[in-house]
Amino acid sequence: MFDNLSPLDSRYRADNPALWKTLSAILSEDAYVQYCLQVETALVKALADEGLCTIAAAEEIQKACESVDSKEVQAEEEKTKHNIRALVNCVQRRVSDDAKPFVHLTATSVDIMDTARSLQVRDAVDQIILPQLRELLQLWISIAEREADTPQVGRTHGQHGVPITFGFALSEYVSRMGGRIKALEQACANLRGKMAGAVGSYNASSLLLPDPIAFEVRVLDKLGLRPADHATQMVEPEYLNDLLHAVITAFGVLANFADDIRHLQRTEISEVGEEFAASQVGSSTMPHKRNPWNYENIKSMWKTFMPRMMTVYMDQISEHQRDLSNSASGRFAMEMLAGFSLTTARTIRVTSKLAVHREQMKKNLESTAALTAAEPLYILLAAKGHPNAHEFVRSLTLQVQQRGGSLLDAALQDPDARQYLEHMTDFQRRQLEDPASYQGAAREKTLAVCRQWKTYLEGLT
Amino acid sequence: MFDNLSPLDSRYRADNPALWKTLSAILSEDAYVQYCLQVETALVKALADEGLCTIAAAEEIQKACESVDSKEVQAEEEKTKHNIRALVNCVQRRVSDDAKPFVHLTATSVDIMDTARSLQVRDAVDQIILPQLRELLQLWISIAEREADTPQVGRTHGQHGVPITFGFALSEYVSRMGGRIKALEQACANLRGKMAGAVGSYNASSLLLPDPIAFEVRVLDKLGLRPADHATQMVEPEYLNDLLHAVITAFGVLANFADDIRHLQRTEISEVGEEFAASQVGSSTMPHKRNPWNYENIKSMWKTFMPRMMTVYMDQISEHQRDLSNSASGRFAMEMLAGFSLTTARTIRVTSKLAVHREQMKKNLESTAALTAAEPLYILLAAKGHPNAHEFVRSLTLQVQQRGGSLLDAALQDPDARQYLEHMTDFQRRQLEDPASYQGAAREKTLAVCRQWKTYLEGLT
Amino acid sequence: MFDNLSPLDSRYRADNPALWKTLSAILSEDAYVQYCLQVETALVKALADEGLCTIAAAEEIQKACESVDSKEVQAEEEKTKHNIRALVNCVQRRVSDDAKPFVHLTATSVDIMDTARSLQVRDAVDQIILPQLRELLQLWISIAEREADTPQVGRTHGQHGVPITFGFALSEYVSRMGGRIKALEQACANLRGKMAGAVGSYNASSLLLPDPIAFEVRVLDKLGLRPADHATQMVEPEYLNDLLHAVITAFGVLANFADDIRHLQRTEISEVGEEFAASQVGSSTMPHKRNPWNYENIKSMWKTFMPRMMTVYMDQISEHQRDLSNSASGRFAMEMLAGFSLTTARTIRVTSKLAVHREQMKKNLESTAALTAAEPLYILLAAKGHPNAHEFVRSLTLQVQQRGGSLLDAALQDPDARQYLEHMTDFQRRQLEDPASYQGAAREKTLAVCRQWKTYLEGLT
Amino acid sequence: MFDNLSPLDSRYRADNPALWKTLSAILSEDAYVQYCLQVETALVKALADEGLCTIAAAEEIQKACESVDSKEVQAEEEKTKHNIRALVNCVQRRVSDDAKPFVHLTATSVDIMDTARSLQVRDAVDQIILPQLRELLQLWISIAEREADTPQVGRTHGQHGVPITFGFALSEYVSRMGGRIKALEQACANLRGKMAGAVGSYNASSLLLPDPIAFEVRVLDKLGLRPADHATQMVEPEYLNDLLHAVITAFGVLANFADDIRHLQRTEISEVGEEFAASQVGSSTMPHKRNPWNYENIKSMWKTFMPRMMTVYMDQISEHQRDLSNSASGRFAMEMLAGFSLTTARTIRVTSKLAVHREQMKKNLESTAALTAAEPLYILLAAKGHPNAHEFVRSLTLQVQQRGGSLLDAALQDPDARQYLEHMTDFQRRQLEDPASYQGAAREKTLAVCRQWKTYLEGLT
Repeated sequence: MFDNLSPLDSRYRADNPALWKTLSAILSEDAYVQYCLQVETALVKALADEGLCTIAAAEEIQKACESVDSKEVQAEEEKTKHNIRALVNCVQRRVSDDAKPFVHLTATSVDIMDTARSLQVRDAVDQIILPQLRELLQLWISIAEREADTPQVGRTHGQHGVPITFGFALSEYVSRMGGRIKALEQACANLRGKMAGAVGSYNASSLLLPDPIAFEVRVLDKLGLRPADHATQMVEPEYLNDLLHAVITAFGVLANFADDIRHLQRTEISEVGEEFAASQVGSSTMPHKRNPWNYENIKSMWKTFMPRMMTVYMDQISEHQRDLSNSASGRFAMEMLAGFSLTTARTIRVTSKLAVHREQMKKNLESTAALTAAEPLYILLAAKGHPNAHEFVRSLTLQVQQRGGSLLDAALQDPDARQYLEHMTDFQRRQLEDPASYQGAAREKTLAVCRQWKTYLEGLT
Repeated sequence: MFDNLSPLDSRYRADNPALWKTLSAILSEDAYVQYCLQVETALVKALADEGLCTIAAAEEIQKACESVDSKEVQAEEEKTKHNIRALVNCVQRRVSDDAKPFVHLTATSVDIMDTARSLQVRDAVDQIILPQLRELLQLWISIAEREADTPQVGRTHGQHGVPITFGFALSEYVSRMGGRIKALEQACANLRGKMAGAVGSYNASSLLLPDPIAFEVRVLDKLGLRPADHATQMVEPEYLNDLLHAVITAFGVLANFADDIRHLQRTEISEVGEEFAASQVGSSTMPHKRNPWNYENIKSMWKTFMPRMMTVYMDQISEHQRDLSNSASGRFAMEMLAGFSLTTARTIRVTSKLAVHREQMKKNLESTAALTAAEPLYILLAAKGHPNAHEFVRSLTLQVQQRGGSLLDAALQDPDARQYLEHMTDFQRRQLEDPASYQGAAREKTLAVCRQWKTYLEGLT
Repeated sequence: MFDNLSPLDSRYRADNPALWKTLSAILSEDAYVQYCLQVETALVKALADEGLCTIAAAEEIQKACESVDSKEVQAEEEKTKHNIRALVNCVQRRVSDDAKPFVHLTATSVDIMDTARSLQVRDAVDQIILPQLRELLQLWISIAEREADTPQVGRTHGQHGVPITFGFALSEYVSRMGGRIKALEQACANLRGKMAGAVGSYNASSLLLPDPIAFEVRVLDKLGLRPADHATQMVEPEYLNDLLHAVITAFGVLANFADDIRHLQRTEISEVGEEFAASQVGSSTMPHKRNPWNYENIKSMWKTFMPRMMTVYMDQISEHQRDLSNSASGRFAMEMLAGFSLTTARTIRVTSKLAVHREQMKKNLESTAALTAAEPLYILLAAKGHPNAHEFVRSLTLQVQQRGGSLLDAALQDPDARQYLEHMTDFQRRQLEDPASYQGAAREKTLAVCRQWKTYLEGLT
Repeated sequence: MFDNLSPLDSRYRADNPALWKTLSAILSEDAYVQYCLQVETALVKALADEGLCTIAAAEEIQKACESVDSKEVQAEEEKTKHNIRALVNCVQRRVSDDAKPFVHLTATSVDIMDTARSLQVRDAVDQIILPQLRELLQLWISIAEREADTPQVGRTHGQHGVPITFGFALSEYVSRMGGRIKALEQACANLRGKMAGAVGSYNASSLLLPDPIAFEVRVLDKLGLRPADHATQMVEPEYLNDLLHAVITAFGVLANFADDIRHLQRTEISEVGEEFAASQVGSSTMPHKRNPWNYENIKSMWKTFMPRMMTVYMDQISEHQRDLSNSASGRFAMEMLAGFSLTTARTIRVTSKLAVHREQMKKNLESTAALTAAEPLYILLAAKGHPNAHEFVRSLTLQVQQRGGSLLDAALQDPDARQYLEHMTDFQRRQLEDPASYQGAAREKTLAVCRQWKTYLEGLT
């Protein structure tokens, strides 16, 4: 395994052998050949339904398809230099002369290949990726609900802004990933097959069948797919492009989450931690290091796979009824699914052990409480009618930074301001006096977002 | 104008000044400031609805908002170094001290900016881009229907395959662009605003309002928008990402169309032409040249704007409750809409003058008729039970290439093959004898695709 | 100006009008037309040198070229639909019938345009970008030397590692940008022109001249350029690609620097600061904010322009002796130079006001001194022969994290370890006792790097 | 093998098993571990040179390094979660207690890994890629020289322009690939290592050595590398970035070549052919097809790997003295070398069998000879003083397109034009009468370019 060229098939296989095997069972060349054979089987069964061949011939071919494997096909391809012709030859040599002509009849190679690709992607998404993402969503929901009241400072530009809760920070990821799951489900349900022949105009099937367009529907129905709205030699590329866009934007959500967690682990911030095994080494030369390397890996995998959308976008262009310049690149596109799945598994693994340092969150929040009160003070002054509240408070903050003390005290020393502040409600006063309590609707929003996606998850079962 | 740095604002402005002006009215910095002022107006009106300020104050502010322009804001920004604070100052200096505090009250800058951005994008798509794409769709439908029966050879790998019709070739673009229009409509209807404050947790509005989440809904409702499902300082980026993905994939469809038309204009193929004005020059040194430069421009604009999706994907990542590193890049993202719109206009312009050379299409098709009959011959032999039809016909093609003659004649000289071919229907025989008639369901599919999208277009009015 | 579509020509023009004007004078369409006219002038003078036209004709044409402007060319192009033919017409209408035929004689449009492009890029780099980068290099050198002894903790993975100095951290950028300046100089000196005619094979000039290859050398020599090693209609694209790669990697160095400075400004770290004007506003709702928005802008501009290398790489491909699909995209490529230059100017502006908080650096460093001593302790133990030093110290750090105290004290309580530590030199002991002094060769390396690049800068003048 | 996820390790491995094995021997994880062990060996030998450990210990360690393999390291990494610590443990367990402490002494993991990476890349480029590119260059030179006189029409915009020779068309690729080979050689010679410790400031080595900067030079010298000009935990990324830019632009040259050859194989053009084996199948349903699938594969591989430069550019950015977010992505970057090498091998394979159809080239050229004479006619008229030659000839071409006949005859019917044409040289007249002979310096340029690069290739041996 370590002689492979791709890290997917060496280092990252070793890292998660069980998932790798599951992915291989759907996304490898071995698997692709099997999907192609499923399509050939569906085709011949539909030919038999139409009376174009006998049921016996169809069953003979189906049985043959069940015993062909990629190794044999590859050996045959060395002669034919054509992968689907090789596969057809392998099937044909297993069946009687009576059945032989009905293998692949009316189809062009890409009828088989593009349909197989859609099946492969559909299964990878339905059986592996969506379950993973839902598991991650559930995990994030649990933590967000648990931490819905944990005070944390909200940060913009890396600077302390106003308070939130840690649950609120996580609910961002619940909401964004929830949205991506929906986008992925929609794109997955919209994958299509084709059985429209060499240039998409049903030439071959028209020779033998009165309604070749309906025939295509019937073949694909056996595989749980619908036909593309239009096809040349290929399925329109946009169905798959939309799905890969959904995958890559979901990957972006993972990368953003990883960046946030990485930065919250900075020595000076230390609000969360990645659990370390007692035997684990952080650095080969700095024995004290506890590095957020898993979150760094998530970001790095995103950097690896995100730019491949450029290939996907370039593969939208194919000359006339198709050129083959999307063939190799289309094969490599499947790596995007594998890379994303492996990274999602890692995210689940490390997030499930996320250590939350509530005391440190509180300490960091309080360290700037004198200043983060600037917003509520300005808002209250303005709401009471102070014509120049923002500028007044901005000057106060400069003063407090130099001389210390609280903003509220400084404001109350200004006779003008004092007058506006007299009529505060108790609720308002409390928020000025205890800036950490100034959390707005952080808790309510967190719970509402979690509720929305729990309902979604419950609806699935 | 020609002193500008961007070709969008010099060369391509000069090329289509009317469209440029329309785009500028929505996508320029001037326009952006106006959208921001609309959001400030909606906010203060909602504050008045809640009784937080007087109706008089709200009206005073609305009126002030109507008279501020980007030049004044820019001048103020040189002092504040903050664009929205500058805008607020410009509004405040127009209103009474009573109204002053209610300008921008409870909002953070990005409440205004991200909401304004969504309005801007929505208007650009709804008012300019979708109408253009529907016009193009209608144009392509007209040509596809008109040419539904025009025989053309189908090409794969740049090689002659089997016949189609030119209308069928165009129906590919009708279908793909139809799908992109739908994707764009859906993404456009899903653009969102926010009024959730500095870090998305409604801190400021919670100070003054019992239900800040409902308040956000009411402010945005005045602008025809819904709130983001979750916000930090920013609206979740995926709403806009999905829209730009729809734009870029629609751009890919234009680029693919342009490549096809370019190649059909090759001297040796000459199946279509770009209309040339009598005074037009093709080359400064080769006076005879008639170049497909408009289609080349379409492709070139796609190459210019497609990679910007990388920026969009990178902008998914923002630290904690936001860092500002998506600010400049987000501004440049608006160029993608402008570039796409200008290119769509060009596509409409040149496609509407597309010259179709039917005689040349026929001539090219017939030049290989002897060989393109290989598929129907193989299909018929196989359907009749020939156990080795593909290989038999493949050998025949090598023979015909060397000795000339028709494939059918060569096949009939083989006693074995002759036997299978005896029982052909008249329809089948005709297709072997007149390969140009071997068009499958090209016509039917063309008309079905056109019907689908005409129904869509009719449903809009 | 604010009605423009591109932020380059509105917001970022307003931000730095002087630099914008300088850039416009080289990179705008106006300027491009002037460069084209310079090439036409060089051509006709070379024709006169060869005796193909009179010196009077050449002078007449040169004078005409000096008075044409882009506005007139644009108006003419509306008729010809061809930009260089338009330009030639504008020149021809200014000269006598005797001189007319010698305008543009033997040249194809791209001879003029690609040569003009190289002149434009060369001037932008030589006159604007390289001087900026050298100014930035000098600035970074000054700060690095000044802070060569300022202790700071070295950070890997966002975690405290072992000490460095702040000057050493900056010397990274001196060295990397120095390297990019060299790469840029080399690529700039290797820009090329051409005068090889419509398809690069000197067809037209061969009709009139005995050695057209030598003629090309003489024309370009008048402009300070060499010919491309080979040309089709176009100059080989790699000369410009290499230059843009140098620009984009230099941009990456700016972005990395900006990220570092942003993070060092985090509230919890606060080791550096962006100077704030007294009147400057950090947030429209949080009056206390001091955001690192300039560094965020630098990063954002990098995100905007970096992906455009994809366009550059796609533009390497042009069919046969050229297709025009690199025309629009090639025009937009010039924006990369403008965007980079504007960003470099901002980097210089804000770096020159960088506030260094030495006390805070010291405080942060000391906060983990107990742990950052782990490395020297392990190294010394190992060097003295401890067979298991890394694992031993790794266990100690877990112990110190729980119980407090210094690593050295803890180690000395281990009889085995104590034995190894007996023979330390004074220098070694000091580094264990005062971890902040454990800076290795940070100072020496800083000064060596600065010296190298100061020598380079001095050598220029 | 077909259970792998990456096409590199399944389909494209099967396609070229010999090359795959050679690549694996340098670029796999197995190989990477061996390179790391080489670096550890160089380090300990340098420690012995300095007297920090005994020669016996160094030899013991060297021997141990020779017997460790990646499988054992991987098993150990499952415990340590740190790859280099795992490797060090594997070495240490093979040596005596006396030698143990000197394994990896003074080094940080990335000292080993970045240096090993440079060795790996250097060897892949020097031993595999450069020899391949030189073989390809030699092959292109042979064909270009052989076809230096073969007339072909020059094409711009897919339209016939003026004549060239086929050798001239190929000399474009000789020149461009020659340039890329030079760029790659330069970048390869500039790869660097480091031995500067955890944050690049030689902290650990300073504890033990008087001149750690000189020590780094000595370690790397044993491996044939120089140190980076500056390092943090990592080697400055630009050395490798420049090399990958050279690789990707060389890839672009392959892709451009493949596009040209694909288009020249279009049915209507047929100027070249990809040799087909008698048993080879072009289409599973169209038995007559002969597709340029190898050239399509070359283009497709370029689309696969080119966008990965975005990852390379993103990996320029690493926070402070490094974050690890370039780790996984850096591993995948090695695939770029493998993908390029496999594609170069394919290019050599299919180009060596390129069939050149000279008759068809001639036929295509002559089909538009009446029009391609437009340029020489215009040039001659202008050179003789016709004040309006371009417009005059442009009108003639419209006339000839309608009425037929030759441009020269049409021109001679114009009394004005006839007068200018009286004084043509024989050479000039011949070019007007036989447009195919109007080839300019195509032959001379071809031979000059070939000569230049043959000299280069001869200089290597």
